[in-house]
Formats: sequence, C-alpha cells, structure tokens
Amino acid sequence: MKSVHIKDFKVSEKINISTTKTTWNLEASKAELKDKLKNTRKELGKLQDTLYAHGKYAVLVCLQGIDTAGKDSLIREVFKDFNARGVVVHSFKTPTSLEKRHDYLWRHYIALPERGKFGVFNRTHYENVLVTRVHPNYILGENLPDVTNLDAINDEFWDKRFQQINDFEKTIHENGTIIFKFFLNLSKDEQKHRQLRRLDKPEKNWKFSPGDLDERELWDEYQKCYEEAINRTSKANAPWYVIPADDKNTARVLVAEIMLQELKKYKDIKEPELDDAIKAKISEYRQRLMND
Amino acid sequence: MKSVHIKDFKVSEKINISTTKTTWNLEASKAELKDKLKNTRKELGKLQDTLYAHGKYAVLVCLQGIDTAGKDSLIREVFKDFNARGVVVHSFKTPTSLEKRHDYLWRHYIALPERGKFGVFNRTHYENVLVTRVHPNYILGENLPDVTNLDAINDEFWDKRFQQINDFEKTIHENGTIIFKFFLNLSKDEQKHRQLRRLDKPEKNWKFSPGDLDERELWDEYQKCYEEAINRTSKANAPWYVIPADDKNTARVLVAEIMLQELKKYKDIKEPELDDAIKAKISEYRQRLMND
Repeated sequence: MKSVHIKDFKVSEKINISTTKTTWNLEASKAELKDKLKNTRKELGKLQDTLYAHGKYAVLVCLQGIDTAGKDSLIREVFKDFNARGVVVHSFKTPTSLEKRHDYLWRHYIALPERGKFGVFNRTHYENVLVTRVHPNYILGENLPDVTNLDAINDEFWDKRFQQINDFEKTIHENGTIIFKFFLNLSKDEQKHRQLRRLDKPEKNWKFSPGDLDERELWDEYQKCYEEAINRTSKANAPWYVIPADDKNTARVLVAEIMLQELKKYKDIKEPELDDAIKAKISEYRQRLMND
Repeated sequence: MKSVHIKDFKVSEKINISTTKTTWNLEASKAELKDKLKNTRKELGKLQDTLYAHGKYAVLVCLQGIDTAGKDSLIREVFKDFNARGVVVHSFKTPTSLEKRHDYLWRHYIALPERGKFGVFNRTHYENVLVTRVHPNYILGENLPDVTNLDAINDEFWDKRFQQINDFEKTIHENGTIIFKFFLNLSKDEQKHRQLRRLDKPEKNWKFSPGDLDERELWDEYQKCYEEAINRTSKANAPWYVIPADDKNTARVLVAEIMLQELKKYKDIKEPELDDAIKAKISEYRQRLMND
C-alpha cells in the first residue's frame, strides 16, 4: 500500500478545482484500506486520550463537501475508536431563528471544542461563503445593518467575509486550537450514482430530498465558490486539504492519516505531571490508604 | 454465560445499600465478557442509528459512582461502536461561576441530548443531593434566597430537592427522553486497590488528587446519601439500576445489556417513511438524474 503524503492534499498554493483529483489510488484492496483505517484511528484514539489528559490543545475538524460526498459516514468510521468523551460532532443545518439573531459565526464559536477534545463540524462556517454565495438572498435574512439589498452583496462584501473567517481561525489557533479543514472532492458522476442509490434502495429513501436535485443543477457555481473559498482561506495555521472522495474507503484513510501525521508533530502533547508538592508526599498518601 | 435480567438491577422497591451486591458472576471469562460487550454495543450502535433517523426520542444515560468506580472507562468501552454523531458526553465538575449564577438544574437542562441522540452525564444532577449533602456548606454557595445558613438545609429542604429532581425527570420523559440512571456500586476495599494503583503506577499518577482520600473518609455518609437518593428517585419512567462494579468488564456488560433490552421495547423506533408526495414522484426524480 502506498504511503499518504500530506503535501499531495494540503493546499499551499492556489488550486484549480476543475483539475483537482476526485480519485486517488493507494494501491490497496478494500480490505487493506479498512485495515489501515482501523490501525490509524486506533492510534488517533490513543493520541486523543493524551490530548485530553494534557488539556491544553483542542482540535477542530471541519468537513465540507456537497451532498452525498460522504461526510456522515466518514465521521462514523474515522472516529470509531475514540473515547466518546473526547469528541463532539456538530452538524450545522439551516440556521435556526435563535442563531439568525446572532452574527453568522456565533453558532460556530459556541460549538468550538474545549481544550482536550476533538470537535467535528459537519458542514461548517464555510457555508457562509458557499451556499449563501450561490443563494445570495439568504444573506438578506441575516439582518445585517448595511446589507439591505442584493447590490450590497458585492466583491467587497465577500472580501470582508473571507477576512473575518481568516481572523476567526487565526484567533482560535493562537489560543490553542489545532485546525483541519477537509474538502471531500466528489465528481459529478459519482454524485449521480449516489443520489440514484438513495432513490433505488427503499431503506435509503428517507435520506432523499427533492431539493438535492435542484442544488445539483448549480454544480458549477458551487465548484467555483469552493475553489475561491479554499484558495482564500488555506493558511499555514488553518490549512485546507482537498480529499479525493469518489472512493469512500480511500477518503477515510486519507483524512485519518493526515490528522495523525500532523498531530504527531506536536511533541509537547503528553500526560501532565503531578504537582511537585503532591509528588513529594506520595508514599505518605499510600501509607494513609494502607492503614485504612 | 448467564443472561442479564433487568429485574436483578432495577430499583423498584427500597434498597439497603449496605446489602446490595458489588460483585456479580455472569459465569464468563474476561474474554467472553469482552466479546459479549462487543456484540451488545454493536447492536446498541445500530439501534442508535435508527433512533437518529427516527428523530423523536432522546436517551439520557446518567452515571453515578464514587471516585474510581469506573465511570470514565465504562463510557469509553460501552459507546465505542456508536457513530460519534449520535452521542454527547458531559462530564460535570465543580460548577463554574456562570453555572452558579443559575439554579442547580440549569447546567444539566441545557446539556440534555436532542431528539435522536444519546446524552451521557458523567456525574449528574444527583451530585446536588450527594456531594452537597455531605458538604452542606456548598449549598450556601448557590445563593438561594431562602437558604442563608446551615439550619435552613433541613429535611424539608432535601424533600423539596428530591421532588424537583423527580419533576424534572418526569417532564423530560413525558416529552420524549428515555432515562437510564446507573449507580456503579463499588466496595470500599476495591476503591482502596484502585486508589493505590494510581499512586503505584507513575503513568496514572496525574489522576490522583489528595482530596480523593479525604472524600474516602466520608465513605459511610456518601453511602447513606446514595441510598436515600436512589430510593426517593427511582421511578418507572426514570429508574435507577444498581450495578455491581467491583469487576469492570462485568459492569460494562450489565450497563450495555440493560440499555439494549430496555430500548428494544420501543417498537415504534424506526426509520421514517418518505413523504407520500415525494414517494409518488420517485421515478420522475430518477429520470431527472438519468438525463443529467
């Protein structure tokens, strides 16, 4: 099986989305990929335990991808060997009326993982430069004081929004959050197959929504928005990784491997030491218990 | 291996804590217990997926037990095969200053699982009739208008608090939350062994706090408080299960089995049906995709 090299996926210079790969050959059978994932997530799970004990870093995993890209099942598989205590998943849907009474980053800010934990955002604050960019009328629903008509949603508006997102991520990174942003890059053909499967399998029917087909018709616009969002917000401290997603088993291995390799670079993540004052008295405490 | 019978653990009449079992023999080897747990949690995980799709019930799992009773590792093992999306663990520690500005149930209420999810409370609202009962001065820190000195923390005060807790659980149950309350019942001897292990193994040292030994000296008072709390709040809709906890593998199997058996009784938990209007048009949607 081929090794996973982070540089193949990390966005460090401008990408052209139409030429990024949606398939990737790790030269491994399905069974080998599953085995690899199993081992990687076990290691990740152990690392999470240490992160929890250390209690200084949080890890934010952002997942973006169009409908059927495999976000849900990736979360299920990649975080399987985690202690449930250590990972919190937030699936962001259409903003609620409470959420709409705040700025668009608010609901993401309050959902950030605390120190020692992994937080997974299933769809993220990037929807605010993706779905709202394809449907700018959604922005009007935000009740922004200076945006009262569609003309106000111009290039300058999006420039500001990208800057706000970069600032947000910079701030949380500087305060101890390690950020991963994964774009599950699916081909239009594979989406068709997956949507058809939902229609063909009665037990998958309930996942189907006619709106998904309407969104599919906006494929090119979404791709354009993804490309710009990724290019403008992939930073050393909050990089994007573009993950070929046509094969689910491969995508899961890539995501897990990238996280593991990156996190291993943090050599300072380890179990805390006992306070010296307590350490000095350990034999005393032991005696107290023995006499009990 | 012996079967798990819920009636052996469910508290349906008053218990005497000093005679409840802290060990339980399922007549199985460690390997068999681990295997059993694996199968049970897989089934539980599947059931969770259906619960999520169904989206009407939430499941609240309350875990109580003294220091070293095995709460953390039980959570790690029992919820291992869950989709991380479907379970949220809250570990309640000493209330923060924000939490203390609210009534004692507030922080638990806002942490309740949403429909379709499991919520695990690692220590629970019961600490308000346990640790605060052993240390009544903590109650004074709650800034209750009518409780300004220790004399006010009398039988009537605790009566009211038990009633409040019963009312809280009744309300959430009536609105779709399925409640499990597990007391991990550890012997005093086994706690001694486990606390010593923390002192003896350098890699476990960081989990040790001298305060744990002080609490251990209040063992009898805690047992008395647990007994009363369990007896006064074990209701048909929010029952307590007393789990013999001296053997961790057995305790985990018991907890997982009890949840699975109880949840299987809810025959209405199933995947939702697609809307009839959408169903009628499935072949139309399929055609639209095929032509794409």
